[in-house]
Amino acid sequence: MTATGRAQRVRERESLAGWSAELQDAVTAMFSQLDGGTFHEANWARPGGGGGRARLLSEGRVFEKAGVNRALVEGPLPASAAARLGGSVPLGTDVHFFATGVSVVAHPRSPMVPTVHLNVRFVELLDAAGNRFDAWYGGGADLTPMHPIPEDARHFHRELKRTCDAYSPAIFVRCKPWCDEYFRNPHRENEARGVGGIFFDHLRPSEAPFGLAPPRLHAFVDAVGRALVTAYAPIVERRRDLPFTERDRALQLHRRGRYVEFNLLHDRGTLFGLQTGARTESVLMSMPPVAAWPAPREPAPGSIEDELAAMLVPRDWATED
Amino acid sequence: MTATGRAQRVRERESLAGWSAELQDAVTAMFSQLDGGTFHEANWARPGGGGGRARLLSEGRVFEKAGVNRALVEGPLPASAAARLGGSVPLGTDVHFFATGVSVVAHPRSPMVPTVHLNVRFVELLDAAGNRFDAWYGGGADLTPMHPIPEDARHFHRELKRTCDAYSPAIFVRCKPWCDEYFRNPHRENEARGVGGIFFDHLRPSEAPFGLAPPRLHAFVDAVGRALVTAYAPIVERRRDLPFTERDRALQLHRRGRYVEFNLLHDRGTLFGLQTGARTESVLMSMPPVAAWPAPREPAPGSIEDELAAMLVPRDWATED
Repeated sequence: MTATGRAQRVRERESLAGWSAELQDAVTAMFSQLDGGTFHEANWARPGGGGGRARLLSEGRVFEKAGVNRALVEGPLPASAAARLGGSVPLGTDVHFFATGVSVVAHPRSPMVPTVHLNVRFVELLDAAGNRFDAWYGGGADLTPMHPIPEDARHFHRELKRTCDAYSPAIFVRCKPWCDEYFRNPHRENEARGVGGIFFDHLRPSEAPFGLAPPRLHAFVDAVGRALVTAYAPIVERRRDLPFTERDRALQLHRRGRYVEFNLLHDRGTLFGLQTGARTESVLMSMPPVAAWPAPREPAPGSIEDELAAMLVPRDWATED
Repeated sequence: MTATGRAQRVRERESLAGWSAELQDAVTAMFSQLDGGTFHEANWARPGGGGGRARLLSEGRVFEKAGVNRALVEGPLPASAAARLGGSVPLGTDVHFFATGVSVVAHPRSPMVPTVHLNVRFVELLDAAGNRFDAWYGGGADLTPMHPIPEDARHFHRELKRTCDAYSPAIFVRCKPWCDEYFRNPHRENEARGVGGIFFDHLRPSEAPFGLAPPRLHAFVDAVGRALVTAYAPIVERRRDLPFTERDRALQLHRRGRYVEFNLLHDRGTLFGLQTGARTESVLMSMPPVAAWPAPREPAPGSIEDELAAMLVPRDWATED
């Protein structure tokens, strides 16, 4: 690698580091404002290199638990881990990696307000000499209602579609079903974790996916990182003061149990984080504050349990009336 | 395989089937008596062969949730699954399996009463012609206190040791550390799930482990299956009417969160069950009825949180005063 190339790479990383830090601040500000409560921050260092800044709002007025985490991790990576990440690793390469991004999971107190998850990240694989041989963006945002309010699923999907369409009409049609495909529990007859949203991975700047050259690709991912302002905040404002019953709360805790099952059994990000030495409390900030596994029962037709289950069958929320 | 051999194998299986059914009845009766409540039974069939009888006590007086399940599953098994089970599979063999056993998980309502888990099983691997090429027993019992009461850990270990010692003094010294080794959360700095007990796997009748010839080996495993009567029931009776506080309950829910993490991230039995088409609700009966993931906090020295954490460091409960 030339000295010029190295200097450029360093500038690029500094720019990405600044991006994820700034994005974390913006998302934190949005949740602080919605809740009125304060995030507590914990900085952590990863033994292998890099670290993170975890922000947690606990027992807030609106959010029972909300985490807005930023990580910047780097160092050597076992080839098996690089392969699990989906990187193209030339045989016999000594893999190093650099990754930075922001992860958000918010578990509202009220069952009338849906749980939301968002993640955006940039991942780079390098050889021992510091030459990049693969790099990509990944991320997405998805909604998990705990009460059957179809209007909120429509709103969330419409806003995500608007965000994507501003960059290319090809994005949403690809990333919406990708999300449906990813967030499901195979051990629960493929039941979805929620009503989906968008998901993407391995969007390589070198390939200009959806016709987006590197700066446009970065701008798209950044826009996704900021999408909750229009896609989620209005839902919170609309639902947070609705009355609810003990039965509504029980359904919320039941659905959160399924959320736990997905995250611990199937989520690649969670398993990758735990295996590569990220801070456990930060990786598992996605866990709901409380969850339940009630005795199995067939929901009565037309009940909230039944209507919520019906919402978990993927459909075109963005375009339906 | 000769007709005589086949007939003998059929008789052996019938005998094992009767054993697991009878053992389930005995364990169910013990928990029914402790609680006063009624178990609900669900029979299920496994698409690949066999099935199970799941018994669940929900919202009882003493037990918030208790499951006593019996499975008898058989059929073809992918070689990879057989290898994950730890079987010795000759290259190129078309593997079939037969397995039967009883699994018990009881989550008491009161945080003063510890959670208990017990499992005993017999597994047999066969080739396409029905010739057995591997067979073994596995199982164990372990205790997860939710409140720091060292006396209960001592009682549980002493009784298990007594059960084991009746068959060979070599068993407990091997199976106690085996349990400590198995039930821990690597992603939580190897924190134990509870105070342990005993664990064993791949005890092959053909090898007469601990000097136990086949009928003695079976009798030992059966004795473990019945050990809760002396090892656990007296603890329940001693603790079930103790008063407790909201803080005690919060600690219980927190520890249950760790229990969920172990079961979904690391327990080989859970993952094997979900991957081989057992009934999901039966495999996941081990999930606590309610669990929590509170904001991380360093426990104050001498607090119940601190004392319970201290109990999770493995030690020789059976022999200490």
